[in-house]
Amino acid sequence: MKVTSVVVTPVAFADPPLLNAVGVHEPYALRAVVEVRTDTGAYGLGESYGDSAHLELLRAVADDLPGLDPFDLNELSRRVHAIVGGRVARDAHGLIGEGGAAKTVASVTSPFEVACHDLQGKHLGRPVSDLLGGATRDRIDFCGYLFAKWAAHPGHEPDEWGPALDPAGLVAQARLLADRFGFRSFKLKGGVLPPDDEIAAIHALREAFPGHPLRLDPNASWNPETAARVADELTGVLEYLEDPVAGIPAMADLARIAPMPLATNMCVVTWEHLTEAIPARAVGVLLGDHHFWGGLKATQHLATACHHFGIGMSMHSNSHLGISLAAMVHLAAATPALTHDLDTHWPWKRPEDDVVTTPWSFVDGAITVPRTPGLGVDLDRDALDRLHRQYLECGLTRRDDTGYLARVAPDVWLREDVHEPA
Amino acid sequence: MKVTSVVVTPVAFADPPLLNAVGVHEPYALRAVVEVRTDTGAYGLGESYGDSAHLELLRAVADDLPGLDPFDLNELSRRVHAIVGGRVARDAHGLIGEGGAAKTVASVTSPFEVACHDLQGKHLGRPVSDLLGGATRDRIDFCGYLFAKWAAHPGHEPDEWGPALDPAGLVAQARLLADRFGFRSFKLKGGVLPPDDEIAAIHALREAFPGHPLRLDPNASWNPETAARVADELTGVLEYLEDPVAGIPAMADLARIAPMPLATNMCVVTWEHLTEAIPARAVGVLLGDHHFWGGLKATQHLATACHHFGIGMSMHSNSHLGISLAAMVHLAAATPALTHDLDTHWPWKRPEDDVVTTPWSFVDGAITVPRTPGLGVDLDRDALDRLHRQYLECGLTRRDDTGYLARVAPDVWLREDVHEPA
Repeated sequence: MKVTSVVVTPVAFADPPLLNAVGVHEPYALRAVVEVRTDTGAYGLGESYGDSAHLELLRAVADDLPGLDPFDLNELSRRVHAIVGGRVARDAHGLIGEGGAAKTVASVTSPFEVACHDLQGKHLGRPVSDLLGGATRDRIDFCGYLFAKWAAHPGHEPDEWGPALDPAGLVAQARLLADRFGFRSFKLKGGVLPPDDEIAAIHALREAFPGHPLRLDPNASWNPETAARVADELTGVLEYLEDPVAGIPAMADLARIAPMPLATNMCVVTWEHLTEAIPARAVGVLLGDHHFWGGLKATQHLATACHHFGIGMSMHSNSHLGISLAAMVHLAAATPALTHDLDTHWPWKRPEDDVVTTPWSFVDGAITVPRTPGLGVDLDRDALDRLHRQYLECGLTRRDDTGYLARVAPDVWLREDVHEPA
Repeated sequence: MKVTSVVVTPVAFADPPLLNAVGVHEPYALRAVVEVRTDTGAYGLGESYGDSAHLELLRAVADDLPGLDPFDLNELSRRVHAIVGGRVARDAHGLIGEGGAAKTVASVTSPFEVACHDLQGKHLGRPVSDLLGGATRDRIDFCGYLFAKWAAHPGHEPDEWGPALDPAGLVAQARLLADRFGFRSFKLKGGVLPPDDEIAAIHALREAFPGHPLRLDPNASWNPETAARVADELTGVLEYLEDPVAGIPAMADLARIAPMPLATNMCVVTWEHLTEAIPARAVGVLLGDHHFWGGLKATQHLATACHHFGIGMSMHSNSHLGISLAAMVHLAAATPALTHDLDTHWPWKRPEDDVVTTPWSFVDGAITVPRTPGLGVDLDRDALDRLHRQYLECGLTRRDDTGYLARVAPDVWLREDVHEPA
């Protein structure tokens, strides 16, 4: 089995006005769909970021993959290194930490590695989880991802979710998510409302959902004093506090006094960071993400290290489609070291906006691990065309939450005065 | 594909009187051959230690494996944990470091994990290296393993290698090994002769084999002063100095002043040790060994961590047969982080003492990576019977180099007065 061609297709799908520490989600989220075709007539799928700088690197690698044996992941790695070299594709938003050369290589490798696993599984008649050591779980639990949000993107119709700019609105949002998806844990994207409002929101969620694990993630937007105060006031309430402050030294300082574990997908996003974070005892839980840790196997290697170094593991998510969800599910199934419910932006995507033929469905907040060959998803080519046209028409070429907020709501001040734009 | 039965067969093969820091090799080396059979009629092979305490655990696990899917390595791991629990099978010799509960589980898991990979590869028509990410090398380089030795086991005929109890004898031995196997690097098992003799032997080897990387391994038998002196006197001569002193703190102290990297397969034999060794900067090169690190995938995870933590990697060896050699070759092929020639006791085994049908052959010190399905070795059942009878007849049930030396040569004092026994 040899690769004959690789197609990289940028797509866009509608995204609500979800607020975070750096701005607000634009009306469309961007992704790249990777299809690796082989001389056996099979295809393998991967999914990645859709920003233009990243797309350029994906396409350069895609052009170099014909002839590759999809089992030869070491050769894939060699080719990606040769092409991406020391180049760096930086995110405009900074929500997944520093983006150096190692992380760029890992991010570019990932969708091709996933597609190769999909091909291997299809070739062997085995689900990808089998290739990763076997599923240790039948179902993968996800947490409900709560966002402060506006009722509508400025100039658009209101979405079905309604606004959420106070504790009551966030509890109502959690109820909607729990009703539709059955989530049994929740994460609040923080760093948006004034810290006292987010503390109040977590207490309100605790009251409304007794026994549900709760997380809060202000994306490193608090100063150490605020972070220490929030940690103190949420003693006994949070499963973990995610990226309260920026950087390993500040995280380590806070970890010494915080009553709950600190988690991150920002200050530890490469192995180099891990080397620094371990002796500093900066992190209690690492949010892995195969999209920027280099793929499925690389994330398993990371999970092994975290397990042995006494660091718990969860999984980070950006806005994504059904291919990424499949990859996350197989990886989580075969990685016993994943100890917490996974993050997912899934609920915020319209069901019809996907590129896989069979829609995923959540039951009790979980996805059943597919037992069909490969990732267990097929490409809906009409949908791919539609989402690609959407990409072309929406005019966005890279995610820029900060610029969008500044344009559409220049009078909104995150963490101070967060209101609906006029 | 499901496991239907597992056979664990202890075997023994002739071993010359090779001296090390704790004693001398007995006339027979012990191993266990693991054969995992499935309902498809296929079998997978693994190889491990033959000591009775280890055998007992292997057999307990073997009885519990029927029904296992050989792709489900996580389930294998779960079953081994359930059976081996907190039990510890300690070595009598101590040459591979502390043997706690985690290492016992890893050691018992290993041969079954290798056999499952063999089965996976046969089932898929793919070499094991493909399942591990693809071969990054066509050939695997090994180093010539030099030993101070007697001419004969007391009461036996002299072996073909002759004695080697001084620098000239060790150089002659290296020439023999180089002539027969083509090795392009050498390791001297040290901690046997007086340290000055071993320093002289390394200098003599350097003169006789200019450009060949050289290593010295006294198995943690020197005190810190001796180790520092040897390190100093071998400045610029050694590729690395292996386990000069015992324990991570003493290794870290020496590492600060030694002019060459320190290597180990003794003070870091579990992830817990690695956690301690990294911040202490105790180790520059880790000698991995899939036999006690939990198998092929587990050793790859270790290699990834070492790579990112700036620790080089080589591979440790005990006396072994052709199944272990195959496993080492596939692992090394698919693990780019392995940066040094591999150790092997192979030359000291008689060619006819093996359990695989096709003998391995070294060319220029290297083994060509097999491209046939699985490990690429077939079981020679007549040979297995013969080596098993040898096990029964030799009367040994666990390796005890120290006891053997005390019995047959009570007047030999290692590191002081090392001579042929009367």
